[in-house]
Amino acid sequence: MHAIVQTDADDPQSLELTQVDVPTLRAGEVLVKVAASGVNRADLLQAKGAYPPPPGASELIGLEAAGTIVAAGDTSRAVGEEVGALLAGGGYAEYVAVPEGQLTPIPEGYSLEDTASVVEVACTVWSNLVMTAGLRSGQTILIHGGGGGIGTFAIQVAKKLGAKVAVTAGSAEKLETCKKYGADILINYKEEDFVDKLKGSCDVILDIIGAKYLKQNLKSLAKDGKLVIIGMQGGTKEEINLGAVLANRLSIFGTTLRSRDTEAKAKIVRETVANIWPWLADGSITHHRHASYPLADAAAAHQALDSGEVTGTLVLTQNS
Amino acid sequence: MHAIVQTDADDPQSLELTQVDVPTLRAGEVLVKVAASGVNRADLLQAKGAYPPPPGASELIGLEAAGTIVAAGDTSRAVGEEVGALLAGGGYAEYVAVPEGQLTPIPEGYSLEDTASVVEVACTVWSNLVMTAGLRSGQTILIHGGGGGIGTFAIQVAKKLGAKVAVTAGSAEKLETCKKYGADILINYKEEDFVDKLKGSCDVILDIIGAKYLKQNLKSLAKDGKLVIIGMQGGTKEEINLGAVLANRLSIFGTTLRSRDTEAKAKIVRETVANIWPWLADGSITHHRHASYPLADAAAAHQALDSGEVTGTLVLTQNS
Repeated sequence: MHAIVQTDADDPQSLELTQVDVPTLRAGEVLVKVAASGVNRADLLQAKGAYPPPPGASELIGLEAAGTIVAAGDTSRAVGEEVGALLAGGGYAEYVAVPEGQLTPIPEGYSLEDTASVVEVACTVWSNLVMTAGLRSGQTILIHGGGGGIGTFAIQVAKKLGAKVAVTAGSAEKLETCKKYGADILINYKEEDFVDKLKGSCDVILDIIGAKYLKQNLKSLAKDGKLVIIGMQGGTKEEINLGAVLANRLSIFGTTLRSRDTEAKAKIVRETVANIWPWLADGSITHHRHASYPLADAAAAHQALDSGEVTGTLVLTQNS
Repeated sequence: MHAIVQTDADDPQSLELTQVDVPTLRAGEVLVKVAASGVNRADLLQAKGAYPPPPGASELIGLEAAGTIVAAGDTSRAVGEEVGALLAGGGYAEYVAVPEGQLTPIPEGYSLEDTASVVEVACTVWSNLVMTAGLRSGQTILIHGGGGGIGTFAIQVAKKLGAKVAVTAGSAEKLETCKKYGADILINYKEEDFVDKLKGSCDVILDIIGAKYLKQNLKSLAKDGKLVIIGMQGGTKEEINLGAVLANRLSIFGTTLRSRDTEAKAKIVRETVANIWPWLADGSITHHRHASYPLADAAAAHQALDSGEVTGTLVLTQNS
C-alpha cells in the first residue's frame, strides 16, 4: 500500500509517499481503507523525533482518519461501513488497522474529510474538559490558545456545558474568532497579564503551554481549581509552590490521548460520540477544516501547520 | 466557659486555660459540651502561627471533639445525644458549636475519648484515599510516614479496599508497627531509596512531605498515578518536570480538610461514617489512643506530640 514514510529521521520534512506492507490485523481490529487523515500538531512533533509512537503502535504518522471498513477481522462490523477512527498512529496511509472501540460513526451531514478532521480534537476536548476536569454549568474555564483547533472546539463544548469561558490568544483577529465561538472573556497575552484579569476565578484551566505558564496558571485557579496540561509549548521544567497548591486544594493533571491503552481510548471515544456527535449533527458545534492536501503532499501540509497561519484543521486525502 | 487560649502569639507553648464566651450558634449548628478533644499536628502548626483558622472559624485550637449535645439550635437533633465532631477549630474548649453535617455517631464500643481521637484521621484518610485518589482493589499505594497516626490508619483502610500497601518510616520499630497494621512493602527511608525499591509501581501516593519528596514521588508513580499531598513537612518549593507528568498521565492533588466549606465537610463526614464506622465497630480497623491529658495541660500534650515519640493520638479530656 501507499503510505507516508519519513526517510530521514533528522529531517522532519522528508515525508515521502512509499510502498509499505498493509498492516496485519490483531484481535479486535478492523482494516479501514483511508479516505482522509487529519494532520495534528503532534504529527509535527513526531516528525521532529519528539513524540515517538507508543509501544505496539504503527510507526507511521497519523492520529485520526476516516474511510471504509474493508476487513472486519474478528469483529462483527460490516465491510463497507464508513467510519471515523481515533488512532495511535498509522493514519498517513492507504490502509490502517483500528481497534473496534476506536471507531466512530460519521457525524450526520459530515463528509469523510470533515470526519477525519474532528475525531482527535473532539476526543481530546471531551476527555479533558469533562472526564478529567469535570467541568460543569456555572464554572469558569480558561482556555489557552483559544484561537487554535483545540481552543475553538473547547470553547464551544464549554459553552454547551454551561461554563463561562475565558481565552488567551496572541492577536485581535484570533480573539475575534474566539468570541464568535462563544468566549466570554478575551485576553491578548501580548498586551495583558491573564493573572491580573482573572484574579483567581478559574475552576478549570486547559493548558497547552506547560512550564512557562505554570505559576500564572496556579495563581489563576479558584479553590478546588483544576489545571489540565495537554501540551508543553512553553517548556517542561519550572518551580512549583506546593504551599499554594494545598492552600487552595488545587489539582494538576498531565494528560495525553495517544498513550492511553485501547480500553481507555474506547471509553473516551464512546463518551465523546455519545455527547458530541449530536452537537456536530445539529450544527451547534462546528469545526473548521482549513484545507485539504493530497496524501503525497504531507510535507507541505506539515509546513503549513507549522507556520501558525492555519486557522482550523488540515486533512490529507486519497482517491478511493 | 473554660477554653485553651494562646496568650502569646510568639510562644506556641503559652496555652492557658482561660474564661471565654460560649460560642453563639449559627444556622444549622448545635452546641456540644466537650468531653474530649483530639490533638493533631495541625494544632501545633496553628500554635506556631503557621496554620491560621479559615475565615469564620473559631480562633480557638482543636479540629475534633466528642461530647454531648446541649443545645440543638434550629436542627432536629436531640439534646443529650452523644456525638463526635469534625471541627474547623474550637475543640480545646468546654463547649463548641458544630454544623450538623459535621457530627458523627459514636462508633459502637467506642468511648468519647476514643471517638475524639478518630474523627479527624478517619475523615482525612477516607477523603484522600477514596474521594480524591479513587484507590481500589488491586492497586498499589505508597504511604509516607506509615508509622504515624494518619499512616497507620491509612494502611488499614487501604488494605480493607484491597490495595497493596508500601510504607516509608524512619525506624525498624515504626516499620514493625506498619507491618502489624498490614503493610506489604516496608521501606526505611534512612537506609533505602524508595524510588529504587518501588520502580514506578505506585498507583497512589499519600504524601506528608511535600517539596523534598516531589521528584521521587513522581518517579515512583505508575501510568495514571495520583500523588495526593496532605502535608509539607519537607518544604513547599521544588522544580517539577511536566514532561514526566504528561508522559505518564500523572495527577497531583493538594488537599486540606480544615479549609473546606461546611457542605464539602458534611459530604466527607457522611461517606466516612458510612464506610469506616462499621470497620471501627467490628474492630477490623483500630486506632491507638496514646495518652489523655486534662484540658488544662494542652501545652504538655503539644510538647509530647512535637517530640515525635507519640505512637498514636493524644486526647485532652474534661470532667463532665
